[in-house]
This record gives sequence, C-alpha cells and structure tokens, in this order.
Amino acid sequence: MSGTITIIGLGPGSSGLCTPDATAALEAASDLIGYAPYLDRVPERPHQTRHPSDNRVELDRARHALHLTEAGHHVAVVSSGDAGVFAMASAIFEAIEHGPASWRSLDVTVIPGISAMFAAAARLGAPLGHDFCAISLSDNLKPWPLVRRRLHLAADAGFVIALYNTRSQARPHHLAEALTLLAETLPPDTPVVFATAISRPDEQIEITTLAESRAESADMRTLVLIGTAQTRLIDRPGQAPWLYTPRSVPA
Amino acid sequence: MSGTITIIGLGPGSSGLCTPDATAALEAASDLIGYAPYLDRVPERPHQTRHPSDNRVELDRARHALHLTEAGHHVAVVSSGDAGVFAMASAIFEAIEHGPASWRSLDVTVIPGISAMFAAAARLGAPLGHDFCAISLSDNLKPWPLVRRRLHLAADAGFVIALYNTRSQARPHHLAEALTLLAETLPPDTPVVFATAISRPDEQIEITTLAESRAESADMRTLVLIGTAQTRLIDRPGQAPWLYTPRSVPA
Repeated sequence: MSGTITIIGLGPGSSGLCTPDATAALEAASDLIGYAPYLDRVPERPHQTRHPSDNRVELDRARHALHLTEAGHHVAVVSSGDAGVFAMASAIFEAIEHGPASWRSLDVTVIPGISAMFAAAARLGAPLGHDFCAISLSDNLKPWPLVRRRLHLAADAGFVIALYNTRSQARPHHLAEALTLLAETLPPDTPVVFATAISRPDEQIEITTLAESRAESADMRTLVLIGTAQTRLIDRPGQAPWLYTPRSVPA
Repeated sequence: MSGTITIIGLGPGSSGLCTPDATAALEAASDLIGYAPYLDRVPERPHQTRHPSDNRVELDRARHALHLTEAGHHVAVVSSGDAGVFAMASAIFEAIEHGPASWRSLDVTVIPGISAMFAAAARLGAPLGHDFCAISLSDNLKPWPLVRRRLHLAADAGFVIALYNTRSQARPHHLAEALTLLAETLPPDTPVVFATAISRPDEQIEITTLAESRAESADMRTLVLIGTAQTRLIDRPGQAPWLYTPRSVPA
C-alpha cells in the first residue's frame, strides 16, 4: 500500500513563521527530502530518515520522493519559503506527469509557506503595496532573453518586482545586467532592497536606489525588491526608514 | 507612554495556516482592529477590545489604530491573507507618512501571512510554477485603463496572473472585461481557476479555460488565477485534476 507525500513550505527561516500545518506534517513524516540547508532547519526526530540532497537536482529529488511514497513511506519534501514559488512543488508535479500512471493515484498534499518576498516586505514596511510580480533570474530553465523581456515588461507595467535566484556561481553577471536594464525604464531614485536571510540570525537588509545599487550586495540567499516610481521612504528618528508603496496610483 | 501596533496577516482562514508569530501577537493585543469578517476569525479573549469596521474605510481604520497606539494601547490590525498584499499594511504606512511626526516614533511590526494566491496554488498543485504577478481589479485607487494596461503587459510577458478584488457591487463588469482582454493575448484553452474561501468550510474551486470562463463564477471572496500557455492539467482517476506550470520555458 502506498504512503503519502507532503510538499512543505518552511517559510523564510524562523519557526515563528512556519505554519502549524507545516509543523504537523514534518512531525508525521517517515522520510524528509530536500536541499541540505533547508533540511537542517527541521528539528531532528527519532525514527525519521533524512535524505539531504544537493542544489539543482530538483527532478531527481522529486522522483526519489515519489518512489519512496509508492513504496509506502510518508514523505515530506521541504522547500524554503513557499513550496510553490521557485521551489519543489512544480518539480514534483512535472515528475508525476512524465512518470508511471500509478503516480497519479498517490496521496499528494501541498502546504503553502511564507515566501521570502512577503517576509522581506513585512520587515521593510509595505513595499508590495499594490500590483507586483516575482521573476527568477536563473536561466537554467528558461532562455535569458525571456528573462530580459519579462523585466522590461514588468517595469513598463509599474509592478513592484521581486527578483529570486539573483546570483550564483553559474551566473555572476545576471543581476548586474537586470539592474542596468531596469534603469532604462525606471527613475534613478527608484528604491531597491537587498534582503538576505530574512528572519534568520544572519538577516541583512540594504536599502538603496536603482542608480546606486550594486549587484555585489547580493549572494545566493538574497531576494532583491525593486520599487516603482510611487514607492516611498518614510524617515524615522534614529532608525532605518520604512518603505512602502501607496495603494493608489494617480490618473 | 505609547504602545505598540502589529499589522497581522491571518492567512486564508484555517488556523493551521496562521503563523505562531501571528497567533502570539493576537494574544498579546489590548485592541483588535479590522474588517468585521476578519475579526470574527480571531478567538475571543477577555480584556481585549474589538473595533470591527466596514470594508473600504482603510485609511480611517489606520488612523484610528495609530491614535490608540499613541495613547498606549497594544493594537493588532488584522488582514486576511498577507497584510502587505492589497491589505492594511500599506494603509497604515500611508497614514503615518501624512500624519503627525510623532507617529514616526511608534513601535510598528508587520507579521506576514499566507496569501490567498499561495493557499489556492497549494490546493491546485503548483500553478504558479514560474514567474507570476498579482493584480487588483479594483479601480477605487487606480484608473481602470491602468488595470487594463497591466493585464495586457502581464499576459504578454507570460506571467501566471493572480487577480485580487475580482468582483464587488461597485464594479460588476470588471472581471468580465479582464477575461475578454486576456483572451486577446492568451490561447483559449489557457487554464483559469476560480478559488473561493480557500481553507474555510465553504471552500470552492472551479477549474475551467479562458474560453469557457464566466465572471459570474466569482464573488467578493474569489481569487482568480490565469495560467500561461505552458500551464498543464494532470488528469487523475476519480479526482479533480492537478494543475501546474512547469519550471522551464522552451527557447
């Protein structure tokens, strides 16, 4: 008899931002699968088997999880943030679609999580304020010209833009190119935020402008938020400013 | 001495999707402020004062919360979903920016929540799969031609699109107009989902196509998800299909 598979968003890092549903699913699992640094966030429990894996092997990891499920295990697949946002949920369903027909009968649950963009926004104030989008800068799975085109259209639309997968060894220059491209459409004083490891002990936030932003401020764990022409800083005595995007756009 | 103000995202409805940080902040509050149906989701506690308000009075509600905070109260302002996504966080910071200078010294915390779009996506599979955007269809605060323009650019960019504030008495025809406009760019068989009251007892999900979608499927509480040309259904024996958007886009 087959088991169950639960695809879990752990949230950005702090246990206070991991939902009760996610915590319960982690406790009930016989097997934990995920990128090793994310698994490290889950408390150790007896009688659970951990299968840490490397980055960038999402489909292999998905198939491994589905084989274990079919063999009767209760599998938890963990992602940071939300499992459906540039994370494991899509890889699991891709594996199911192209896998054996029996996988379509498996008991699959997805538990959403607090995404990095929402955690970062909450720390800053309310920068997402109105319409927004999320774009991955990785060209592992889509052509770079398409990323450039989406950035251009998003800036033209006036979306607040959250950039995921901003930097890696394999693509050291993408973020710099993205910032240059956005500067062709957006004003130089558009607020830009580098948000790293939000809610974790090594949390770092840098608030700057498009003209002054430097791609070197980002590492593999950094989410970059690009404001709009309407996004505003509120200065505060003795503290970092708040950042928010008004709900209204003038005619 | 002034108090504290915490702007809280309750998540989509079920307590299993409300974070421990949000629950702790609700317990610590002396005063609860929010749209009445959202306040109704918070368990009653002795010694707490509730200030339920009507819809569409966000700025009045924000100023009321800030006055109470300045007077020493510990105020929790509640939103459904995430507080920063078409919800109260932006209204609070707008009130602070245009209010007395003393409000800039207040102790303000924002606690993120599981947004409706992530809760709906998790129920369906992984429809957000790659780049996506969120657009409010309300023209209370921005001109309708701008909404139309953003819809057009988002479809052109190939974003999965989450539509918020899809229907109300004041704008019964916007959703129909949006669906017609999107059909000019997207293929007729593009998956469309009407997701209502996700994780609540009256949850309803309708999966259809752009060609067959009817605005009447939405009410005030309905999030509408529009897929891309890549979004796929996975048929299952005896159950609703899974919906996912592959992570990859062919060149």
